[in-house]
Amino acid sequence: MSKGQLVYSGKAKELYTTSEPGVLQVVYLDQATALNGLRKDQMSGKGQLNNQITSLIFKYLSEQGIANHFIKEVSPTEQLVTKVAMIPLEVVLRNVATGSFVKKFNAVEGTVLNPLIEFYYKNDALDDPMMNDAHVTVLKIATAEQVAQIKAQTLELNQTLMPLFEKIGLTLVDFKVEYGVTPSGELLLADEITPDTCRLWDRETGKSLDKDVYRKETGDLIGVYQEVLARLKQALAQ
Amino acid sequence: MSKGQLVYSGKAKELYTTSEPGVLQVVYLDQATALNGLRKDQMSGKGQLNNQITSLIFKYLSEQGIANHFIKEVSPTEQLVTKVAMIPLEVVLRNVATGSFVKKFNAVEGTVLNPLIEFYYKNDALDDPMMNDAHVTVLKIATAEQVAQIKAQTLELNQTLMPLFEKIGLTLVDFKVEYGVTPSGELLLADEITPDTCRLWDRETGKSLDKDVYRKETGDLIGVYQEVLARLKQALAQ
Repeated sequence: MSKGQLVYSGKAKELYTTSEPGVLQVVYLDQATALNGLRKDQMSGKGQLNNQITSLIFKYLSEQGIANHFIKEVSPTEQLVTKVAMIPLEVVLRNVATGSFVKKFNAVEGTVLNPLIEFYYKNDALDDPMMNDAHVTVLKIATAEQVAQIKAQTLELNQTLMPLFEKIGLTLVDFKVEYGVTPSGELLLADEITPDTCRLWDRETGKSLDKDVYRKETGDLIGVYQEVLARLKQALAQ
Repeated sequence: MSKGQLVYSGKAKELYTTSEPGVLQVVYLDQATALNGLRKDQMSGKGQLNNQITSLIFKYLSEQGIANHFIKEVSPTEQLVTKVAMIPLEVVLRNVATGSFVKKFNAVEGTVLNPLIEFYYKNDALDDPMMNDAHVTVLKIATAEQVAQIKAQTLELNQTLMPLFEKIGLTLVDFKVEYGVTPSGELLLADEITPDTCRLWDRETGKSLDKDVYRKETGDLIGVYQEVLARLKQALAQ
């Protein structure tokens, strides 16, 4: 299957058509961004690490019965995925209070949450504003039924990911996922699950093994992502 | 009943204890503010107009069976209300898209909404951040049951206010209300309903008869509030 036209160019990946109409090829880029793209750096090896990490996790999710868009890895930085109509929502699940949540509401850092789900409208020009359920339906971003389904699937995903990360000595503090809809109307987990999109705290040292080391300039992103990949490989070795 | 100690000092009103433990005295001030208090002006007569407008509306709401804190007017700028523990939420209901909603989501000005309810955490230091239902419960601002009750009562309030304003030639575009809880646990509509807290558009001319004339500096606030009061008096004359 050969890579065709560029159909999406994001901060950390690009999507291309393939010879198969229902299949897209994702290319993970060597780029790190923060502050909604205001800070941007080339990071040799990041694309390869994220492609491997998200591929391992999505394969595991498929085995656990979590519907998702992943098909297979086709090169160190590339994978094939099912083409879906993306819902322009960043779905955030928080198990522990930190980051923007703490800042916005003056909440206590480290508080264990219920967990809590937030929706952000994926729109760089508008700076990804937070939405409530009514905004999502009124603005016709998703139906009320899809909103309920997104919440249920994200909670289920959390229940599947938490023990996986716990097994490799990490607390899944929070994560961001996105969903898409297949031509037949099925809601599929899409996008990626990587240290770009999750906060992962080492259960022994409390240190971040995620993009916060880049956001806060407290460590070496590549070294940290390599550590996450190594632990995942060990845990998921067949 | 004599006015006692100051217990709350807000942008547009002050609250005092009275000789009756369960009763507070509200004093409406001659002050207009915008941009979360950054702009502030003295407006002679505003306190009197708002006290009269909100008193007329709350009396009408009581007659219509909407539970609320209003007891009675005691002077041109003062009224007595039932003392409640205020829930620090600004509850916004939008019938028509305008203002921050249009700006934040790039929505089309004037779109008729479902209606839509939003919660804002009443906290000047945090700049009143928007919250979803989960934030409200996780941060223990209200219980899930109270959140459901607040939404139901606000929708019912809207159903009662819309025809009242329609009768006086105004479209109730959106409004902000606040709720409190009595010692016995009853949820009561509190605060005020005035052109400070509602957007009211003249159904013939489309012009704003509310605080937007001050926010946007497009007209005379006092003249506009007098017009709203005059129309309400005529409609609600016994």
